[in-house]
Amino acid sequence: MTMPIKRNALVGEVGERGVLRAIASYLSEGGGRVLVGVGDDAAVTAATPGTAMQTVLTTDMLVEGTHFLRNDATDWKSLGRKAMASNVSDVAAMSGNPRFALVSLGLPADLTVGCLLELYAGLAHEARLWGAELVGGDTTMSPVMVINIALTGELAEGRPVPLRSRCRPGQNVYLTGDVGRSRAGLELLTDPAAASLRGEPWTETLLERHLCPQPRVKGGSALGAALDDLAMIDISDSVLNELQLLANASAVKLVISPGRLPVTLEIRRYCALRGYDVATFAMSSGEEYELMFATSAPQEKVDAILKQANADAGATLIGEVQAGPAMLTWLDSEGAEMHVKNETFAHFSGKNKA
Amino acid sequence: MTMPIKRNALVGEVGERGVLRAIASYLSEGGGRVLVGVGDDAAVTAATPGTAMQTVLTTDMLVEGTHFLRNDATDWKSLGRKAMASNVSDVAAMSGNPRFALVSLGLPADLTVGCLLELYAGLAHEARLWGAELVGGDTTMSPVMVINIALTGELAEGRPVPLRSRCRPGQNVYLTGDVGRSRAGLELLTDPAAASLRGEPWTETLLERHLCPQPRVKGGSALGAALDDLAMIDISDSVLNELQLLANASAVKLVISPGRLPVTLEIRRYCALRGYDVATFAMSSGEEYELMFATSAPQEKVDAILKQANADAGATLIGEVQAGPAMLTWLDSEGAEMHVKNETFAHFSGKNKA
Repeated sequence: MTMPIKRNALVGEVGERGVLRAIASYLSEGGGRVLVGVGDDAAVTAATPGTAMQTVLTTDMLVEGTHFLRNDATDWKSLGRKAMASNVSDVAAMSGNPRFALVSLGLPADLTVGCLLELYAGLAHEARLWGAELVGGDTTMSPVMVINIALTGELAEGRPVPLRSRCRPGQNVYLTGDVGRSRAGLELLTDPAAASLRGEPWTETLLERHLCPQPRVKGGSALGAALDDLAMIDISDSVLNELQLLANASAVKLVISPGRLPVTLEIRRYCALRGYDVATFAMSSGEEYELMFATSAPQEKVDAILKQANADAGATLIGEVQAGPAMLTWLDSEGAEMHVKNETFAHFSGKNKA
Repeated sequence: MTMPIKRNALVGEVGERGVLRAIASYLSEGGGRVLVGVGDDAAVTAATPGTAMQTVLTTDMLVEGTHFLRNDATDWKSLGRKAMASNVSDVAAMSGNPRFALVSLGLPADLTVGCLLELYAGLAHEARLWGAELVGGDTTMSPVMVINIALTGELAEGRPVPLRSRCRPGQNVYLTGDVGRSRAGLELLTDPAAASLRGEPWTETLLERHLCPQPRVKGGSALGAALDDLAMIDISDSVLNELQLLANASAVKLVISPGRLPVTLEIRRYCALRGYDVATFAMSSGEEYELMFATSAPQEKVDAILKQANADAGATLIGEVQAGPAMLTWLDSEGAEMHVKNETFAHFSGKNKA
């Protein structure tokens, strides 16, 4: 008989074997398409029955100090959810359906088992929400905490992949859901000037979006299945940055109406109270995990596809694709085009997503 | 026009965008089965033509200080090769063929671009050797260097997976290649008492094995295809540890003849000079990446399978499987069984390989 592992035990006390015992319940032991789960040299999953599938592959590394802080206030479950959501969103941006996740953890000796379990609860919960399973991983000791997720997804064979480079002149540009809430939520947590708003009920949606963004899996998959001229990207850094990536990858001019960016009433209220321009604020908010896409399909068709798929959010027309060279302009309220300079939004993204 | 990135530039100077430019040539841009390589939200790979495939999934995290040191003596190319080889070996132990790798790197600001390029050269070289491609990854800043690899492999559908739990009484236990060299190589590099041997030509093979182990991909794949009663594991920690894992997973007694452990003449010579017992030394050597397997097939059949597959190494019969309970015993030179106590080789492995 083995003793249960106490939640207040430290990782350094229970050792890596203890860690594995503690988190075992979150990892697949096999079943369904997982032929081999935890406990062997590697996981093995069955081929998709029926249609041949293309495989989507993505990975993300989060490092303590760079991406999150480790202290008494750390919300480990939310961190787990968000770490998984960012990978799920990458799969959604390729119009894939998430399937199998590998989680590697670098663990400091003074982390408690309880924190680790909360993190895993978040990882597993978010994975399950979008149809993915934790099939394995690796744990190791590390002076700083590191969380790496690798996630696979599936996409029916023959379906065109909605590459960033597939924007074509004449297409419309759409954005799912709404943007801005994640940045507002971050400010509520970190900006002393925003702290006084934190208790107000209407700001809960801002915090929630920042802590638990909702990747648009159903929408991405449905759009990919229905549209054969789709270019798509997810909003991980900011609308501005992702627009630039689309424009550059496709060598097109994107003409965007900032006034059309979908924002909630709470964001209008928040920006009014803080003295921000709503469009500028929404444009620069990161970690939204909405999908931005270009297609020749009109609004009604896009609406119908998303409704049919029971997607979690609709999409708003925010601009159009014109012939290149690669450039981003936005329309002011009088309909005049303003060129957005590259330097304005040069952004050092760590992704060689891939 | 963009400036080439100098090898002596620091990661902190060139930023993550510079890092991506520097390593881009090692990452697939697409082609063949890689439908989408570097540069989008995720990589996409085509389904295997012909047969449906089971997917093998494994991951490994290496952390500076825990798994490797970062200093002027660090051999970055070898580190890259070995990091990839350990994942390749996990796929081989499931009898799979390695296919697609995602590499996440946590990078300290004071690392030079040259070191990073050497590391990538090693990763890419080793991947290519075994039929795998680098299809994507993630890079981020980190106070300590972290290397995470996630690797997929393939295994034809319907082929039984050689689980650790598939040892059955009456089977033979085999070990590919030879063991002991990796530990000897490590000692040559780190043990002052062994340093004087380092220049001697006969010790080169010991260093080479430690720095660049050869995962047994062809052998593992061929054995998996030909034998329907196979249990298999790779030697990452030590022969002793992996024997115990097999015995426990299968609830069987393994009776091993230490005198039969395959060792090279160089290991006999090294042990004689250092005053080590050869079998004990070989038994406890880690990071060998040989395969250990149990099957009812006799030696001649195993030899024929490996020869037919043009495998890089043969296999040696080292013992047999008897009815449980889970236990490990070895035969001394008089044929008497000695029980190996669990505590003798309790080993804290970080893998929840899965």
